[in-house]
Amino acid sequence: MSQELRAVEWTGNGLALIDQTLLPHRTQIVDVRDVDTLVDAVRRLVVRGAPAIGAAGAYGVAIAVLQGAREGWSEAEVRAAVARVREARPTAVNLMVCVDRVMTRFAEGLDAVLAEAAAVQREDVEANRAMGAAGADWLLKRVGEDRPLRVLTHCNTGALATAGWGTALGVIRELHARGRLEVVYVDETRPLLQGSRLTAWELVQEGIAHYVQADGAAAGTILRGQVDAVVVGADRIAANGDTANKVGTVGVALACADAGVPFLVAAPTTTVDLSTATGADIHIELRGEEEVLEWAGVRTAPTGSRGHNPAFDVTPGRLVTGLVTERGVLEVSAGELPGDRMR
Amino acid sequence: MSQELRAVEWTGNGLALIDQTLLPHRTQIVDVRDVDTLVDAVRRLVVRGAPAIGAAGAYGVAIAVLQGAREGWSEAEVRAAVARVREARPTAVNLMVCVDRVMTRFAEGLDAVLAEAAAVQREDVEANRAMGAAGADWLLKRVGEDRPLRVLTHCNTGALATAGWGTALGVIRELHARGRLEVVYVDETRPLLQGSRLTAWELVQEGIAHYVQADGAAAGTILRGQVDAVVVGADRIAANGDTANKVGTVGVALACADAGVPFLVAAPTTTVDLSTATGADIHIELRGEEEVLEWAGVRTAPTGSRGHNPAFDVTPGRLVTGLVTERGVLEVSAGELPGDRMR
Repeated sequence: MSQELRAVEWTGNGLALIDQTLLPHRTQIVDVRDVDTLVDAVRRLVVRGAPAIGAAGAYGVAIAVLQGAREGWSEAEVRAAVARVREARPTAVNLMVCVDRVMTRFAEGLDAVLAEAAAVQREDVEANRAMGAAGADWLLKRVGEDRPLRVLTHCNTGALATAGWGTALGVIRELHARGRLEVVYVDETRPLLQGSRLTAWELVQEGIAHYVQADGAAAGTILRGQVDAVVVGADRIAANGDTANKVGTVGVALACADAGVPFLVAAPTTTVDLSTATGADIHIELRGEEEVLEWAGVRTAPTGSRGHNPAFDVTPGRLVTGLVTERGVLEVSAGELPGDRMR
Repeated sequence: MSQELRAVEWTGNGLALIDQTLLPHRTQIVDVRDVDTLVDAVRRLVVRGAPAIGAAGAYGVAIAVLQGAREGWSEAEVRAAVARVREARPTAVNLMVCVDRVMTRFAEGLDAVLAEAAAVQREDVEANRAMGAAGADWLLKRVGEDRPLRVLTHCNTGALATAGWGTALGVIRELHARGRLEVVYVDETRPLLQGSRLTAWELVQEGIAHYVQADGAAAGTILRGQVDAVVVGADRIAANGDTANKVGTVGVALACADAGVPFLVAAPTTTVDLSTATGADIHIELRGEEEVLEWAGVRTAPTGSRGHNPAFDVTPGRLVTGLVTERGVLEVSAGELPGDRMR
């Protein structure tokens, strides 16, 4: 993949989104010109990953302004449309943060809104680069400098999930660029296979050696000593370091704690929500049952079965060995809490 | 499901196996008359579940004898065919134990072989009934008698996985029969969906309320306090209580230990292998990569990705709160080790 890959790109008239529901076998762009299409794209996971959703939301303000101008909306109607974008998904805080940031320039007009959205996107890429370097430094120091690392990751946190480069996958790409990466174990990440479809696709583009495995294999792979470190992203991080991320993450964290393997969360500071005290205060999105009961529209479970489909889980801060943001690494499980260090 | 459901049934001329690869949407019987078909059925998971494979292996001796008679094999050829059945899958000890038991009567001829295989099957059902009662007693005493239980299970351990009734699912059925079961969380059990396809199917037949969930959801469901107990089966249990079971099990066990939720392993004594000292001595079957890279023959991961597909993992005995066999419950994590108590 070239480093120019953009999951979210402003075209001058609207947003070009890579339709991530169709990867890895089809690369198709969705051209977003109105708020309904954007909200639908966020909900259907055409665009997903907390920072990518944040960038899409930032430009979403511009889309609402443009649509409002075309269709003669009142300011209240434009603001209501922006609110719908802001609430299209509930768990990731980046969406709300980015929309709110761009809205501070709403009164200045479209050019200011677009400039602020572009800044959101540019700063996210810069943050990713910074956390990639800081995370790689920390891991190599912690795990040892003597050989390339075997790293496990869950879900997709690469260029597709961000404004560019990647959070957890950014750390992994940085290790690869330094010649310090042996192999990546990629949890397939059911039910929607973001690991198998998206992370593996990015790794193929980068020429990075990897194995896709069932999510259930992660704990055993870690306990058998096949993994030197785990790096994952985050959708919302509370003041005490509790971390909401893709469902399945906390099981990986528990295995790391048991095996003494570092568990590193990589996320921009926009993901840290100091107004959320603990993970218990994070709203966990329950998605449709059909995502676990069907496969590509074909029922796999028996008729009559119900599904339970939380999209995220919460990893207690005590299991988070390191939290890397663009500002550096906090050793959360050792007591460096975001609420103390990041105010 | 009627209690008469038989995943493995001797027809008089051969073995009738329910093709479990086609459930829940098609119920088709495979008529096994020769050793090649049997070995293929075991490898392709037409029949699966340690006790069911054991019963199939027991009757496999009779199939080898009958085929040998038809085709004029020497005794050495019959014995070689039996050895192939015995080694069709490497992890479950029941297959070896059951074949060896029936082979003690090989010299007495076909009727004795068939009588022994029938005894294997009958005793497995009796063992399941006994461990169902003992496991339910233990759980209700441990978790509390005040309300129906919410139980999580992984993979399939019901009538389909055994000679009848079920091991872990037998405990769950017993709780249901006593009116002490609220709901079952069924891990879908990737890559082959034994939970979603088979356990859910059995629960639908029984009218037992359940939710199918992604394997990654298990740890979060347990940590959020939505589960009172976990019950799983086993493919091989070492003398120190280390337990090989379907991949994904150890992650569930870690979550239970973290949350203080009882983790109960239900397995007949034939699954306990006192000649295996610890889990490190258990051979873990690595299955084909395509099981994680494809879905129903369609590639889901990118071309160029490799797969890592261990079929089992090992849960350390220290995480096994209870091990229920037909002889009762050992509290393994509290120090009641099979190697001390079951010799």
